[in-house]
Amino acid sequence: MRYEESTIEGRNAVLEAFRSGKTIDRLFVQDGCKDGPVQTILREAKKHDTIIQFVKKERLDQMSDTGKHQGVLAYAAAYSYATVEEILQAARDKEEPPFIVLLDGIEDPHNLGAIIRTAHQAGAHGVIIPKRRAAGLTAVAARTSAGALNYMPVAKVTNLKNTMEDLKKEGIWFACADMAGDTMYNVNLTGPIGIVIGNEGDGVSRLVREACDMYVSIPMKGQIDSLNASVAAGILSYEIVRQRMMQKK
Amino acid sequence: MRYEESTIEGRNAVLEAFRSGKTIDRLFVQDGCKDGPVQTILREAKKHDTIIQFVKKERLDQMSDTGKHQGVLAYAAAYSYATVEEILQAARDKEEPPFIVLLDGIEDPHNLGAIIRTAHQAGAHGVIIPKRRAAGLTAVAARTSAGALNYMPVAKVTNLKNTMEDLKKEGIWFACADMAGDTMYNVNLTGPIGIVIGNEGDGVSRLVREACDMYVSIPMKGQIDSLNASVAAGILSYEIVRQRMMQKK
Repeated sequence: MRYEESTIEGRNAVLEAFRSGKTIDRLFVQDGCKDGPVQTILREAKKHDTIIQFVKKERLDQMSDTGKHQGVLAYAAAYSYATVEEILQAARDKEEPPFIVLLDGIEDPHNLGAIIRTAHQAGAHGVIIPKRRAAGLTAVAARTSAGALNYMPVAKVTNLKNTMEDLKKEGIWFACADMAGDTMYNVNLTGPIGIVIGNEGDGVSRLVREACDMYVSIPMKGQIDSLNASVAAGILSYEIVRQRMMQKK
Repeated sequence: MRYEESTIEGRNAVLEAFRSGKTIDRLFVQDGCKDGPVQTILREAKKHDTIIQFVKKERLDQMSDTGKHQGVLAYAAAYSYATVEEILQAARDKEEPPFIVLLDGIEDPHNLGAIIRTAHQAGAHGVIIPKRRAAGLTAVAARTSAGALNYMPVAKVTNLKNTMEDLKKEGIWFACADMAGDTMYNVNLTGPIGIVIGNEGDGVSRLVREACDMYVSIPMKGQIDSLNASVAAGILSYEIVRQRMMQKK
């Protein structure tokens, strides 16, 4: 991982990092920032014996990758990737059928971060991304995840299709987001499932697509082609939430 | 409106603008760009007698607001705001109960664009935004909408609460996205409806909140507070789509 990948920026993201027990190497706070949220962050930092440095806004601007540090920036132990096994274990620990989000080449770190955030809120057990041609866990992705990255295992695999074949042996079915698929409301998504979201421009690649068991579509009533990848992932994830909730009743 | 608000950037956005019949004053194409999508755009431009200029990449980069022109940039007649009456008329024309998305102070033009895109795909009849402290129809919003802005009426009103009171007289009910509300799956959202999405940081303002008839929540299973505003708007909009589809069966 590159060094910038261990920079955490913005008040919520930094506070969440402390609260989740992540190791913060050093905290930078803008001179003169003394409002409530900053005081809360400083208290957390002292509790964890974190080195605190007060710096000028210009310095923070220079250090910032996103330009949105809100007066607070932290250097953390780099985000570490989880293993696929850890994701499965998370599902076992919760005694829930696995619910995994697979991203086939999401390139925009904002989309990656937003999807990690949504997947976490929807109760997914992990996110799987490929090593090549995809956004990784950069500072932008971390910030856009609004802290969810601290709780959500994200595994990075060499070959998405091979990983899917392995997971099938664990009883997981794969549902591919696909315009030509069955309307998602009519497909049973309550079992152990991996949903596959494609690249922003090109969709799901052929090999990964062929490895899927189900093809599900979000109804489109407008005159354009598609939805933003992170919005589509959110809508599909919450259809799983709905079906699992209804099943319990 | 400012001049930059009439710049359209990126291949999909420019092509959609032509196809939707929007008046393009001038088209700029990067020297040497001759691939299929660009040829399609050039054909559309010739069909519409648009002035075409081939320019160097550096020139396009300078003109670009978003930095993502993909070799194509157009100056269009500025996006014009619709009226609330036009939104209601769109619902009447389709013989559907009105479905409106109200944004109470969305500040990020990416979120605004993504919400317009999703609202259009979900079959909403229009989006209403307030004049103050909110992102307007800038080039970034237009590009993020991926062309949906050409089809979707967006009205800008002085006072969101007053507009809601007027719309209530037309029989529209307002559902506020609210963490403390009833789970959205358990609330009937099939009638004439306006959904209210709050500001990215502060949520829905007090007066607007009090003017709502229903408070609906998206189930949150994670350990962070909330979802991205455009993802939340998408999930809520598609719950309306689902309920309306199920009702027709």
